[in-house]
Amino acid sequence: MKKGLFLLVIILASAFCTTAQDADSLMIKSVFDNALKSEVSYKNLEGLCNVAPGRLAGLPAMDNAMQYMLQIMKSMPFDSVYIQPCMVRQWLPGQDTAWYTLNDKEKFPLTVDILGGSVQTPEGGITAQVVIFNSMDEMKKADPSTINGKIVYFNRPMNQTYVNTFRAYGENSSMRVLGADEASKLGAVAVLVRSINTAIDDFPHTGIMRYKTTDIKIPGFAISTKDALELDSALMKYPQAKVFLSSSCKELPEVEQGNVIGEIRGISHPERIITVGGHLDSWYNSAGAHDDGGGCMQSLEVARLFFETGYKPHNTLRVVMFIDEEMDQRGGKKYAEEALAKSEKHLFALESDRGVALPTGFSIDAPEAAYNKITSWKKLLEPYGFYLWYKGGSGVDVGFLKGSVTALAGIVCDSQRYFEYHHSAKDTFDKIVRREMQLGAAGMASLIYFIDKYGLE
Amino acid sequence: MKKGLFLLVIILASAFCTTAQDADSLMIKSVFDNALKSEVSYKNLEGLCNVAPGRLAGLPAMDNAMQYMLQIMKSMPFDSVYIQPCMVRQWLPGQDTAWYTLNDKEKFPLTVDILGGSVQTPEGGITAQVVIFNSMDEMKKADPSTINGKIVYFNRPMNQTYVNTFRAYGENSSMRVLGADEASKLGAVAVLVRSINTAIDDFPHTGIMRYKTTDIKIPGFAISTKDALELDSALMKYPQAKVFLSSSCKELPEVEQGNVIGEIRGISHPERIITVGGHLDSWYNSAGAHDDGGGCMQSLEVARLFFETGYKPHNTLRVVMFIDEEMDQRGGKKYAEEALAKSEKHLFALESDRGVALPTGFSIDAPEAAYNKITSWKKLLEPYGFYLWYKGGSGVDVGFLKGSVTALAGIVCDSQRYFEYHHSAKDTFDKIVRREMQLGAAGMASLIYFIDKYGLE
Repeated sequence: MKKGLFLLVIILASAFCTTAQDADSLMIKSVFDNALKSEVSYKNLEGLCNVAPGRLAGLPAMDNAMQYMLQIMKSMPFDSVYIQPCMVRQWLPGQDTAWYTLNDKEKFPLTVDILGGSVQTPEGGITAQVVIFNSMDEMKKADPSTINGKIVYFNRPMNQTYVNTFRAYGENSSMRVLGADEASKLGAVAVLVRSINTAIDDFPHTGIMRYKTTDIKIPGFAISTKDALELDSALMKYPQAKVFLSSSCKELPEVEQGNVIGEIRGISHPERIITVGGHLDSWYNSAGAHDDGGGCMQSLEVARLFFETGYKPHNTLRVVMFIDEEMDQRGGKKYAEEALAKSEKHLFALESDRGVALPTGFSIDAPEAAYNKITSWKKLLEPYGFYLWYKGGSGVDVGFLKGSVTALAGIVCDSQRYFEYHHSAKDTFDKIVRREMQLGAAGMASLIYFIDKYGLE
Repeated sequence: MKKGLFLLVIILASAFCTTAQDADSLMIKSVFDNALKSEVSYKNLEGLCNVAPGRLAGLPAMDNAMQYMLQIMKSMPFDSVYIQPCMVRQWLPGQDTAWYTLNDKEKFPLTVDILGGSVQTPEGGITAQVVIFNSMDEMKKADPSTINGKIVYFNRPMNQTYVNTFRAYGENSSMRVLGADEASKLGAVAVLVRSINTAIDDFPHTGIMRYKTTDIKIPGFAISTKDALELDSALMKYPQAKVFLSSSCKELPEVEQGNVIGEIRGISHPERIITVGGHLDSWYNSAGAHDDGGGCMQSLEVARLFFETGYKPHNTLRVVMFIDEEMDQRGGKKYAEEALAKSEKHLFALESDRGVALPTGFSIDAPEAAYNKITSWKKLLEPYGFYLWYKGGSGVDVGFLKGSVTALAGIVCDSQRYFEYHHSAKDTFDKIVRREMQLGAAGMASLIYFIDKYGLE
């Protein structure tokens, strides 16, 4: 190549690069500007929290939620909107009552919520003495005769010293999930778990529990952190104090509900799919604003931002409102199973299910080359606060695609507030900050834009 | 030097460096652990919001606030706790009423708050037509005959597209501060300002207004963003609609109150001072949890964390609860004047007055060498979320020390939520997230620890 021609090529190439980068910056700015000025998604979330609080899969509130989302999605220019049917458990919460007594006469009320999937208490409830443990290991090492006939009380607070509160959640959640299963083997009659909450307040935080290894099913309850402190003081002075627990929850046969899906057909590779989603279900005791109504709305907002900015994705974009993340993840499993059965090509899947606080980055689960390509776009999103891009899990629902998708990711937000709301009646719409939700949605749309435009090869 | 000896010195020096850095990391970890586990500061803030809401300088609520803080500080092992007296204005808010009418018959109520320092309305209030502007410049360019006898309505929303909401605040605040002063020259009878708020809600956001260039004083009001939208619709259809405004606010002679100060005498350089503070006053319509009760508690927490961890500062540490930041900054001015008058040596001053959301870093106002030294500690605070250290202003109150202090800084927090609360009745204790407040306080304590230990030379 002649020197002049060579230089011309270099100049043109660098001009092209600058232009491409400028075009990307402008697209991202347009996405963020549009998101930050809009009230649409925020109002839609308010509506969801109002029409379908307590939308646990299997409950009528979930039917309301599905209809509500279908209606919104059908009013948007998706190429198709549909329900992917899926059988779900029908576990119904009931009335929960609890108190403690020092002398079998005076009753001091305790604020509790039944754990998800628990069996109900026997007729007349359970009244028993309490044995306290700080971990499963501590319980397993104890003399079973000290546990037999008693209520096991897992009384471990979250470790407040971790900057990342999810780490403390991870350390405590096994007591909630499998505590009753393990305690029943040692003769316990019920399990009471200190709510996994970073705050001291009146809200019990529920969550799933499982009977994995035993047929002896004993009920499990979460107690509010405030009442846990009160009960601690009482037990310190009166170790013989008794606790009463009652719940009328029950399980009925499975029912059909499903994932709500909106699809934009790709203009270049319609057969290649990018998925973005959150889970539509929430716990029975919660409006589910942060967990995960906000994540659903952020996922839907990605599509709205593409429609608004006129961006037509090259690959097919699917916005998925997964069902049943909280109980059995039937929605996530169903979605992945069908993808596999139909031999669909999945390029990327992004989940929002860590609350909708200030977004700080992405947790990425991808092979080295794809990971490096994804993180090469970080510098364009840093000005919007997306500083932290790292290797890690994506999310429970899109995680089932692992192995049949090039890359997975989850949006990461500031975790300081999340566990004050998580799985409790405190998770209401007024705790949502519109700008935080919109920044997150815009960051998600921007990342999908890059992957859609440039691929992951 | 012999080669062996030289190597030994290098090895010892690097061992010393490692040890020093390890000691620093351990100290910081201890500070953060202690802060994140503690409820003390959070409970103290709850108390302040309860005993002294609406604690504008000059009002009795400020006396309550000063007494409350004195009591807390005296219960801590400070070497001295005292009030630095300071005269402050005594501007009293009164009853505010507003409505609009399309036909001089039916009245539609408007939610307004009088602006700080405003004159009261004439007997019987003000009823007038409205002229809308989006900026001071737009008003100044208008034909004065269209303004004469009217209420000027500055109706500019915050620019939602800025990621940093303080930028939008800066663009809009001059209309609130000087709008009435400028409008009165053009014959306006009052000024109504759309609240500087990122959310659409029912809360008016007040703030200072000033009569700078004219003796013709007309009153100024803030209208809630929700009612601003309603008024906009009404005015769109009925430009002749009239607005009624009434306030019984008034100004009485100045009174003496003051800065509340706690001092730990330095063990090495007692004559050299490090100041950390927030402002104790809040707007009359607000519990002042974020602005700036939280900042006061974070400043006090720096001292508590030093006491708790056993760290004895080399320089004298002063925790200052400044008075009167909102109206005239008399507290900040007084503190700086006395420092100058007494020829005090001030090494560093740090302010917390940007809400108590997730801390993200520090804004630093220092000569190059000191700036570089300060930012050299960034890497040790990044694991706690302090990513953003940059050159910029410190804060209004400590800013008066400029010129007589080596370096100034302000803690920087996530700004997405702040202007939903700022200067309004929405700024209540329940909006505070304990962990966010504590992370901020721990970061402040850590930065002060470094500067105290290593100096700024």
